Amino acid sequence: MAPKKIIIPGFQFAGIHCGIKDDPRKKDLTLIYSEELETLIDGVFTKNRVCAAPVEVCRKSIRQGKGRLVVVNSGIANACTGVQGLRDAKKTQKEAARLFKLNPDSVMVCSTGKIGDPLPIRRLLRGLKKGKRALSGKNFLEAAKGIMTTDQFVKFGVARGRIKGKKYIIAVMTKGAGMLRPDMATMLTFIVTNLKFSRPVLSVLFRRAVDLTLNRVTVDGDMSTNDTVLILANGRAGNKPFGLMSPEAKIVETQLTALLTEMAKKITLDGEGATKCCRVQVSGAQNRADAKKVAYAVGNSPLVKTALFGCDPNWGRIMAAVGYSGASVIPEKISIHIGPYLVVRKGQKALGHDPLVVSKYMRKKNIDMRIDLGLKSGNFHIYMSDLTYDYVHLNAEYHT
Amino acid sequence: MAPKKIIIPGFQFAGIHCGIKDDPRKKDLTLIYSEELETLIDGVFTKNRVCAAPVEVCRKSIRQGKGRLVVVNSGIANACTGVQGLRDAKKTQKEAARLFKLNPDSVMVCSTGKIGDPLPIRRLLRGLKKGKRALSGKNFLEAAKGIMTTDQFVKFGVARGRIKGKKYIIAVMTKGAGMLRPDMATMLTFIVTNLKFSRPVLSVLFRRAVDLTLNRVTVDGDMSTNDTVLILANGRAGNKPFGLMSPEAKIVETQLTALLTEMAKKITLDGEGATKCCRVQVSGAQNRADAKKVAYAVGNSPLVKTALFGCDPNWGRIMAAVGYSGASVIPEKISIHIGPYLVVRKGQKALGHDPLVVSKYMRKKNIDMRIDLGLKSGNFHIYMSDLTYDYVHLNAEYHT
Repeated sequence: MAPKKIIIPGFQFAGIHCGIKDDPRKKDLTLIYSEELETLIDGVFTKNRVCAAPVEVCRKSIRQGKGRLVVVNSGIANACTGVQGLRDAKKTQKEAARLFKLNPDSVMVCSTGKIGDPLPIRRLLRGLKKGKRALSGKNFLEAAKGIMTTDQFVKFGVARGRIKGKKYIIAVMTKGAGMLRPDMATMLTFIVTNLKFSRPVLSVLFRRAVDLTLNRVTVDGDMSTNDTVLILANGRAGNKPFGLMSPEAKIVETQLTALLTEMAKKITLDGEGATKCCRVQVSGAQNRADAKKVAYAVGNSPLVKTALFGCDPNWGRIMAAVGYSGASVIPEKISIHIGPYLVVRKGQKALGHDPLVVSKYMRKKNIDMRIDLGLKSGNFHIYMSDLTYDYVHLNAEYHT
Repeated sequence: MAPKKIIIPGFQFAGIHCGIKDDPRKKDLTLIYSEELETLIDGVFTKNRVCAAPVEVCRKSIRQGKGRLVVVNSGIANACTGVQGLRDAKKTQKEAARLFKLNPDSVMVCSTGKIGDPLPIRRLLRGLKKGKRALSGKNFLEAAKGIMTTDQFVKFGVARGRIKGKKYIIAVMTKGAGMLRPDMATMLTFIVTNLKFSRPVLSVLFRRAVDLTLNRVTVDGDMSTNDTVLILANGRAGNKPFGLMSPEAKIVETQLTALLTEMAKKITLDGEGATKCCRVQVSGAQNRADAKKVAYAVGNSPLVKTALFGCDPNWGRIMAAVGYSGASVIPEKISIHIGPYLVVRKGQKALGHDPLVVSKYMRKKNIDMRIDLGLKSGNFHIYMSDLTYDYVHLNAEYHT
């Protein structure tokens, strides 16, 4: 079944090959263009101290809160490229602005790919012209393909609704991969919608949704050099902007969070070589910070990750990770569920669970793990991938 | 060349099979016995909040500073075993004390192996008798074999010297494996010497040496549930105890540190599936804590570890790990050496290095990496292993 074309009124897209990747069949340049003068834009970026040149440029330009064009190249990250890298990112922004007759601050530039190499800037600038010619309201999927690097499949999602008779659509494209630990994926996500927002409401809903979803995969200080999430809202739907406490805000936030949860899962499942996505839910912690520590200790433990790959309900490794997480724990109060199965009760092997049955459950693609520390009400969840032969293969064979 | 028997005057050893491991050819019980009434003992233990029953027992007994017997079983960790586990550890201690006519607090018990299963306590207690009969001054190597779990080879080392004509020997046996991250190895190390120490001097030299070596592999909050390092000094050499600032102390500390460095490297190289040991030296940090953060961020990064396995001088991954380490860094001041080769200068690719030459260097078993942050004088080093297919194989296939 061919998917219906995704049309977001007032947006045009292009995904082309401009010559950054060697294979001419692979797209390496994406443009997202909004026809509306008053398009709101907001973004969150990596907190890595070693951040890429385009992130520095975007971070500055986005302050004005409006933007019309996003230029994304894949294949080269333009990170650790010094003064030249910054010059190239600015040149891209400026040249795109000139072509589209925009203020340079209305143009966002993003890069993803190999660290340390300079952008082939002439090819990229020539690509901008080609990309402009290719722009069309029907090219959403092409654009989603243009941002891929080691991704095995294209990732996108759509939500629709109505506000007082006005139809709206929220569409998102994302790329990730390299997810053994949150710090290694370069995650790029672009959300476009024809909804009309007030700036503060957009900012709050956007940030809350990202925090509960994409940030649970590639979080805070653990992000890569290039991670970027942008939202563009062009207002074409013609709805009246809604308040933060309105029922409309609630619906839109729920939709956005669901969409980004789906993206987070897709990114996790497409972690280099990953075969599974496990949601780790920690509850009963002293506080939220402790719950987060436990979730990440478990989610980042290579021993837990390999057990996940091997469908092995090895709760001892989970207990060990909980113990070294740095959170306050009383071992005798810990209980652990894998799916519906209680495997640890009061810090010990739970009687009555059959490891073979749990192992069978673990063959699923989407797995749930719940860890209850039995103390107070702090809770946190993350999405983790497994660690596989293919991860080692992809990353040991990928040569600089 | 068959190695010469290692004799430490006044110590007897046994390494036998008592029935914890299925394979009767595999030793699973080790005894280390000191003939001297006044044998000093000191120890450091895992800081994991989920710690094994024997660790709890040892930690308490070791407070008196003297001990005569160490009982180690391999195969089962006696961790996450609740009240029963504590009862079993105490029973082992008590029964061994009765057999050897010792105060129970003079007996240290250690376990390593699978988490969550109860000790086969009857087999273990029967094993104590068999072990006692097997004791001999010549069984050091047998004892070193009895503590192995997933270890691929037996690990030990010896240093010798003289203090004013009195000959002494320091011998160490260790086991590790499971070293993708420091938190997963159960590391057990036993040091025996006939040197005569004053208690405070022993304590200081021992702790300083462990901190610079074994703790750089399995450090602090990141230890496993069972990690234990013990030193026993029986004074049989007859030397006069030396002061902390004496030349003798300096020599002994240097020897001990060298021995434990060798052990740290052996543990790293025997990390499950590891093929390389890389010493990561961080310098020029704001302070020592920052240097430590950078060293561990790099050392624990699966992307750096797979690059190491693939002999790929992928400095971009190193830069990304430095960036998310949480340490203060100015990217433009960072330089990175792999072996003698400068690969990053001022935060960018260093001109003039040939990746093929660096890759060739990386085929060695022991590799050096130096990261200079170019700020102040904080420095720290660790030992890291690579991440290989065999790691995934061993850990995904090892079923609970």
